[in-house]
Amino acid sequence: GPVAAVVRELRCVCLTTTPGIHPKMVSDLQVIAAGPQCSKVEVVATLKNGREVCLDPEAPLIKKIIQKILDSGKNN
Amino acid sequence: GPVAAVVRELRCVCLTTTPGIHPKMVSDLQVIAAGPQCSKVEVVATLKNGREVCLDPEAPLIKKIIQKILDSGKNN
Repeated sequence: GPVAAVVRELRCVCLTTTPGIHPKMVSDLQVIAAGPQCSKVEVVATLKNGREVCLDPEAPLIKKIIQKILDSGKNN
Repeated sequence: GPVAAVVRELRCVCLTTTPGIHPKMVSDLQVIAAGPQCSKVEVVATLKNGREVCLDPEAPLIKKIIQKILDSGKNN
């Protein structure tokens, strides 16, 4: 398993979502199911400049971002 | 943006991957691009029981898990 736990919030973390994020700007994407901590699905992207933004879980872009990240290791 | 930053490791977090994780067991999935902190793509799933496991980024299951999570908010 992971060598260190990721600290997670016990409430909703996204107040607003940011449109217009290009997949190549994203280094890390976290998809959080609706649950006791928050009644909506949340998607948090970490950008290559270190900034974190929330994305609309219904945006088709999400799947493109995930594919881009999954492909990022294939040249190594 | 997110109201709180997620603490991230500055090194690889996955030493091994766990097979046989069912999508309905997963509450949170994090997909981390290869980068200066780690030369491989990493996928960390948080299970509904709180356990964290690493998944094989090349497993077709990853996309099913993401779809399941994205769909989790649609009944709310």
